[in-house]
Amino acid sequence: MMSNPLKFDSLWYGFHAATMVNGQYSPIEHAAIGVRDGQIVWIGAQDQLPAYHAGQEHHLHGGWVTPGLIDCHTHLVFGGNRAHEFEQRLNGVSYQAIAQSGGGIAASVNATRQETPEQLLSSASRRLISLMRDGVTTVEIKSGYGLSTEHEAKMLTVAQRLAEQHPVDICTTCLAAHAVPPEYQGRTDAYIDYLCEEVLPTIAQRGLADAVDAFCETIAFSPEQVERYFRAAQAFGMPVKLHAEQLSSLGGTTLAARFQALSADHLEFITENDVAAMRESGTVAVLLPGAYFTLKETQRPPVDLLRRYQVPMAVATDINPGTSPVLSLRLMMNMACTLFGLTPEEALAATTIHAARALGLAETHGQLSVGKVADFVCWDVASPGELSYWLGGDLLKTRVKKGESSHVDTH
Amino acid sequence: MMSNPLKFDSLWYGFHAATMVNGQYSPIEHAAIGVRDGQIVWIGAQDQLPAYHAGQEHHLHGGWVTPGLIDCHTHLVFGGNRAHEFEQRLNGVSYQAIAQSGGGIAASVNATRQETPEQLLSSASRRLISLMRDGVTTVEIKSGYGLSTEHEAKMLTVAQRLAEQHPVDICTTCLAAHAVPPEYQGRTDAYIDYLCEEVLPTIAQRGLADAVDAFCETIAFSPEQVERYFRAAQAFGMPVKLHAEQLSSLGGTTLAARFQALSADHLEFITENDVAAMRESGTVAVLLPGAYFTLKETQRPPVDLLRRYQVPMAVATDINPGTSPVLSLRLMMNMACTLFGLTPEEALAATTIHAARALGLAETHGQLSVGKVADFVCWDVASPGELSYWLGGDLLKTRVKKGESSHVDTH
Ligand SMILES: [Zn+2]
Ligand SMILES: [Zn+2]
Repeated sequence: MMSNPLKFDSLWYGFHAATMVNGQYSPIEHAAIGVRDGQIVWIGAQDQLPAYHAGQEHHLHGGWVTPGLIDCHTHLVFGGNRAHEFEQRLNGVSYQAIAQSGGGIAASVNATRQETPEQLLSSASRRLISLMRDGVTTVEIKSGYGLSTEHEAKMLTVAQRLAEQHPVDICTTCLAAHAVPPEYQGRTDAYIDYLCEEVLPTIAQRGLADAVDAFCETIAFSPEQVERYFRAAQAFGMPVKLHAEQLSSLGGTTLAARFQALSADHLEFITENDVAAMRESGTVAVLLPGAYFTLKETQRPPVDLLRRYQVPMAVATDINPGTSPVLSLRLMMNMACTLFGLTPEEALAATTIHAARALGLAETHGQLSVGKVADFVCWDVASPGELSYWLGGDLLKTRVKKGESSHVDTH
Repeated sequence: MMSNPLKFDSLWYGFHAATMVNGQYSPIEHAAIGVRDGQIVWIGAQDQLPAYHAGQEHHLHGGWVTPGLIDCHTHLVFGGNRAHEFEQRLNGVSYQAIAQSGGGIAASVNATRQETPEQLLSSASRRLISLMRDGVTTVEIKSGYGLSTEHEAKMLTVAQRLAEQHPVDICTTCLAAHAVPPEYQGRTDAYIDYLCEEVLPTIAQRGLADAVDAFCETIAFSPEQVERYFRAAQAFGMPVKLHAEQLSSLGGTTLAARFQALSADHLEFITENDVAAMRESGTVAVLLPGAYFTLKETQRPPVDLLRRYQVPMAVATDINPGTSPVLSLRLMMNMACTLFGLTPEEALAATTIHAARALGLAETHGQLSVGKVADFVCWDVASPGELSYWLGGDLLKTRVKKGESSHVDTH
């Protein structure tokens, strides 16, 4: 009996594919991908294609296809920038002097509060386009420079509007516990009360955030304060994640694991107990080499421990105006290899399959297999390792979002 | 008496300019640039413009204009790439094991010798386009993977052909003393004889190189060998430059200064005497943070010493397949700041006015002033410091080469 031909909206061929299934290259040479309704409905070697009918056929003329890159930790929306502080510091002005003159995170909070949604949207769009031109198809965006109901909601609304204007998936995260705003200086617990009683309820009710995040550090919030905030998030059914163990070991990671956190991020100072807890809870380790590089840190996250406990590692830009002014996720793959010792295969898994899991998108994103969203990128490379090997440069041939080839306009 | 109006082929306005005159930003707010015959014939504040007639007028709608960036040290032309070795090393294979299986520089020599000029041209073009898209208007390209008359000439011819195909100035450098080729293993002095008696005379006679370079290091050539080679170059009237003091202190820099070298490059291990010698000879210090980063070096070039002796500092990509697979000069400006402590103003001088001097182009390139070539870039930034602040991203608005706005095509 003849089977009916498969029906594709589009068929893509003429490339090799690194599918990233099981977190490995899991390559298919001379591959083809059939797409229907924005999903992958067939993938395999081209010469194994069954009978099909395709609305469109796209010959990509060589290169490697990977899943669209996923940037699972960004602070993409912010007012102003801090290039002036970068320049001051290199001219010998101390961090302290900069902070005393209103610089540091306070400067970004001030600028973000003052800008209109349209202004924030415009600068964030330009940064988003840089990420997209380098192969990104999904981006997480945190609030955290508003630090009030009004301004946190403004940031998250801008983040959601970016997804309407660009062919990219956006996950939003409420990071209201990023810093203590000036009006709560010296009253950190009162600020946590305000977050639990006013900010989180409004954000949750208005559907502005897919997850909740905090900064657990001596210069920010203690584990006890984070725990109260996480409880409030949990009450609204929102998953949590945490900036943890970046500059010291406070136990934030283990706390996050207790709350089944999607991810714990930074992790330079995690202990073996933290790693064991992450393994138990299925929490992804998000490594952020851009901040490590920019802050000239010397303590690396314990990659060998994470491997031994099989904790999945993701890598992200952490794009933010103070400690990681990074506009290329592929550059972070290189830095994850060069600075942290990841292999290029781990670095690619870290920006695809494991990054998807860090966003709770493991079922739909981050690998090339039947049933997954048809987000993929064709690169002008002879091996997938080249994605981590080159620093900078323009390697992207074609970027496909939900089965549609998207031309990424600049400005 | 009325003066005649100035005649411009084109007038550019609607931006601020960092002219880099005297090696500083030397900014002009609300600037205008008048171009005639590919040269800057007027520059100043727009409201100071005298009567003029312009063939074309270009309003750039904001941003900062800088001189076109100059990448004064590259190995842009090479066969193959070494992503596979990068991947092997990160998977735990030792440098030694890689070298024993034909890897390292021998792999690049082998691949470069095997490829046709057309193949070399194609891959080099793609890399050149990445540099150009990031604001580069002048590139130095070294040979050094041919290591025979035939193959060194092939590489330099490819480099010269790149300038015919792209709106960019190319300076070519004969780096035949880069490594000892397999057919001369164990006979380094005989190889130097061959370079002096056959390779350099042919390269000089055929006009293939603007300068001559060597790699002075324990793993390459001794100062005595370099001196013989430099004498031969001098006999043909060719200026010299040197890869010196990257991994150890051999005295190569002082030797180069004795030969009035245009530049000495790398310089992690230079001494105060070397710096004093460079000052005497007017030799530019070319810093290469991409190789420092990729090799995980820990000894930084002595920037304070270079400042104290007022030795001009340039910064370049050193793009090469082994130790610096770098496709963005702007990223090297960030690394020069973050890793070596340059200020953003020094980093911009290092890729404009001082890079021009490192190529013997100080009279014509590297700054925005009357009489200089009209090579400039308009960036989508609010301050010139942003060029060093952002890692990656697409900041370029318009790239002007010899007065012509050039759209930089990808592939
Ligand atoms: Zn962050
Ligand atoms: Zn070099």
